[in-house]
Amino acid sequence: MRHKQFGSKFVVKLEKGEEVISSLTKFCEDNQIFLGYLSGIGAVNKATIGSYELSTKTYHWKDFSGSLEVTSLVGNITFLDNKPFIHVHINISDENLTIFGGHLREATVGVTLEIFIEKIDGRIIRKMDNEIGLNLLDLND
Amino acid sequence: MRHKQFGSKFVVKLEKGEEVISSLTKFCEDNQIFLGYLSGIGAVNKATIGSYELSTKTYHWKDFSGSLEVTSLVGNITFLDNKPFIHVHINISDENLTIFGGHLREATVGVTLEIFIEKIDGRIIRKMDNEIGLNLLDLND
Amino acid sequence: MRHKQFGSKFVVKLEKGEEVISSLTKFCEDNQIFLGYLSGIGAVNKATIGSYELSTKTYHWKDFSGSLEVTSLVGNITFLDNKPFIHVHINISDENLTIFGGHLREATVGVTLEIFIEKIDGRIIRKMDNEIGLNLLDLND
Repeated sequence: MRHKQFGSKFVVKLEKGEEVISSLTKFCEDNQIFLGYLSGIGAVNKATIGSYELSTKTYHWKDFSGSLEVTSLVGNITFLDNKPFIHVHINISDENLTIFGGHLREATVGVTLEIFIEKIDGRIIRKMDNEIGLNLLDLND
Repeated sequence: MRHKQFGSKFVVKLEKGEEVISSLTKFCEDNQIFLGYLSGIGAVNKATIGSYELSTKTYHWKDFSGSLEVTSLVGNITFLDNKPFIHVHINISDENLTIFGGHLREATVGVTLEIFIEKIDGRIIRKMDNEIGLNLLDLND
Repeated sequence: MRHKQFGSKFVVKLEKGEEVISSLTKFCEDNQIFLGYLSGIGAVNKATIGSYELSTKTYHWKDFSGSLEVTSLVGNITFLDNKPFIHVHINISDENLTIFGGHLREATVGVTLEIFIEKIDGRIIRKMDNEIGLNLLDLND
């Protein structure tokens, strides 16, 4: 992983073999990015993607592998358990250019991944919402 | 709906049951956001999505329901009929993680929706383009 | 193509018949945008989209035509061969709202295309990575 910083903007390049979520989490820790949003494109060769079922409060996960273009990686950085937390959703294409996507648990970079992060000075904490079963943005005053 | 403002950036959380377009429109009115762009992720349980057919100048709408991850909500805020106008396109996944998408007419939040808005000081008005049949950005001087 | 500038932010409107990549490249050249990121929505009526196969170092291209909503156009502007280089991935929907996508080689605007560009003062050069076979971001010091 390599990066360059331009004020509040970070250009990040993940390299073949790197895992996306853990790399981004470590990057935000190292660079003290506690709040922000990001978008990225590139290609992965493995991804575990989920869909959340509210009635059972469980994610259903599915594994993908192959030449997978990342047509969009969109999400945010907030604060959970005293460290930056990456929440991203992904769209990937298979060889027929059909798109699959959902909540990203993990993915391995296959070619490259180019991510632009917009850092916001501030903090938003996630808090368990018992009705929903997930750690949601805590925007109460 | 809850939010926090950080300078020109707004972090917005829509909650289960809220309608996306009307909530965002009201939010922008209340916060005097007349121009900007946004991106978001989350999950909805209902969505009406369309594809525009230029030859007949009509949208073809399709309804979706279920556990629908929002893999990307991308779009902009401009000015129409003297108030903020939300133009967003959406990608959603069904339980097989297949993606559907298009122009978003309305959607109901199913779990949560996390949106980052970048406000721009200024105004861009939409104006009916008779050849196209839609209110397009008026960028003439 | 028309645009308005608001500080480091550019609102760009591409019109029916304009080719996306060449128009954006020219726009960035004319406006001295050498680094930045962008997102956009709209509709195209033709697109050539690819998936990269690392083992053969070739793109596999596929042509699409029809009423194609652009549900997301995400990517970046960097510097290659002494001029701005546009790298974008696209998601498009067909009439059934099924999504296809990948690396965008070219596309013709069918209705309109609304793009927001965030210019960054600085430069990132692309350099051929011989192992990968592509011009990747050069973030070495």
